[in-house]
Amino acid sequence: MKIEQELALAMRLADAAGEAIRPHFRSLADTERKADASPVTVADRAAEEAMRRILRAEAPRDGIIGEEFGTEEGNSGRTWVLDPIDGTVSFIGGRPIFGTLIALLVDGWPVLGLIDQPILRERWVGASGLPTTFNGQPVRTRACSTLAQAMLATTGPHYFDDHQGQHFMALAARTDHRRMMMGGDCYNYGLLASGQIDVVCEAGLKLHDWAALVPVVEGAGGTMCDWNGDPLHAGSDGHVIALGDPARLEDVIEGLACDH
Amino acid sequence: MKIEQELALAMRLADAAGEAIRPHFRSLADTERKADASPVTVADRAAEEAMRRILRAEAPRDGIIGEEFGTEEGNSGRTWVLDPIDGTVSFIGGRPIFGTLIALLVDGWPVLGLIDQPILRERWVGASGLPTTFNGQPVRTRACSTLAQAMLATTGPHYFDDHQGQHFMALAARTDHRRMMMGGDCYNYGLLASGQIDVVCEAGLKLHDWAALVPVVEGAGGTMCDWNGDPLHAGSDGHVIALGDPARLEDVIEGLACDH
Repeated sequence: MKIEQELALAMRLADAAGEAIRPHFRSLADTERKADASPVTVADRAAEEAMRRILRAEAPRDGIIGEEFGTEEGNSGRTWVLDPIDGTVSFIGGRPIFGTLIALLVDGWPVLGLIDQPILRERWVGASGLPTTFNGQPVRTRACSTLAQAMLATTGPHYFDDHQGQHFMALAARTDHRRMMMGGDCYNYGLLASGQIDVVCEAGLKLHDWAALVPVVEGAGGTMCDWNGDPLHAGSDGHVIALGDPARLEDVIEGLACDH
Repeated sequence: MKIEQELALAMRLADAAGEAIRPHFRSLADTERKADASPVTVADRAAEEAMRRILRAEAPRDGIIGEEFGTEEGNSGRTWVLDPIDGTVSFIGGRPIFGTLIALLVDGWPVLGLIDQPILRERWVGASGLPTTFNGQPVRTRACSTLAQAMLATTGPHYFDDHQGQHFMALAARTDHRRMMMGGDCYNYGLLASGQIDVVCEAGLKLHDWAALVPVVEGAGGTMCDWNGDPLHAGSDGHVIALGDPARLEDVIEGLACDH
């Protein structure tokens, strides 16, 4: 399959996920208050099922790793990684800044990534060797001449343990911390690709949380890595940095390394 | 002026603010990186000026308190309180969850409040004795039978000092803290009025940050007060609670009072 066909397939997956998700947004009856407080929604499962149906029909030899329904092995060397609703808390709270994440791994590496916000009908698409687009238009990260000017985003400090939190706060203190932005999940990485923010720093991300983000961020001129500056891979520990201006990478790593 | 006329005027103010704001959203050239890191934007000032022009023409005897341009005294007993962009960090970051806040105080008490999201064209309107509406349709807060089920939101922990943060964390630990939602500013109070979330807890809010929220939340069946449970007033210390189900008020006050 060529990249154009893979992109077209990814678009159809995102369309199907959006169709499945939209009826449930701000629909109170669908909000489950589970005993374990896990924010699982009807929309989450319906969207992943819709995407799996398309993949089984159109790419039956490809593997699938999904946030909701686990792994289906393939034999093509290609694996689709699906997170139907990244940002479930925003979804449940009624904020249209969650996203559907779709990545295609070839030999374990994400060559295609898509972030879709189905309520606002906003879509970032990245693929190896192609410029990242937002609703079809190319976007670029912005330059950031010093870390002190950088706008930093993270979904929430309660996703860090104490040790991670100390390192994050050390980094935050070196950025323009009065503009630090909380909440947002995958949406923050799209905004970084569009040149709205400079750094996203998180911990605890799983493959389905970050795989789609890499082609989007890197195709827009940014870089993604772990907290040591090493490339992300399937066995990464979930510590993730996205940086709009790669020239600030050393500053960010140095900021994070310091916890006092 | 009757409440219907006041509501119509408030709507025109919000329309004018939205017109002034929309061209600057995600417009990188407009983002000022000020030496003091204060997120002040062209949009903020243009929107407040647009609203002040309308008020001077249509309600010249009313006072105005604005976030950007300070206080103009009136002699009607009525004062309009304007915050053109509440959630400036979200605005600058490109997230459409900031809002324009418009309140009308009569003898110091907010009798009318409006939260407008000009990008999504979403508007919550509350007025004494009338049901709160969202885009013209009545909305209600939701019931919350125990604090352990409550979904809590706050704009960010970095807006608390250490002491406030300890009290907030004590409250958070009693809620469904895995669903705690960060970021959002005034938008969270609109979502609470719509029955999407249960509690918002913040500190450091000024009159122009909270005055418009009170009629919206209370007209939807919720309640707003300070961290002691006392009514908000012009001299309040900026510690604000919004609660969808007033039956949980004692639980929230008790949760906040504990800092260990």
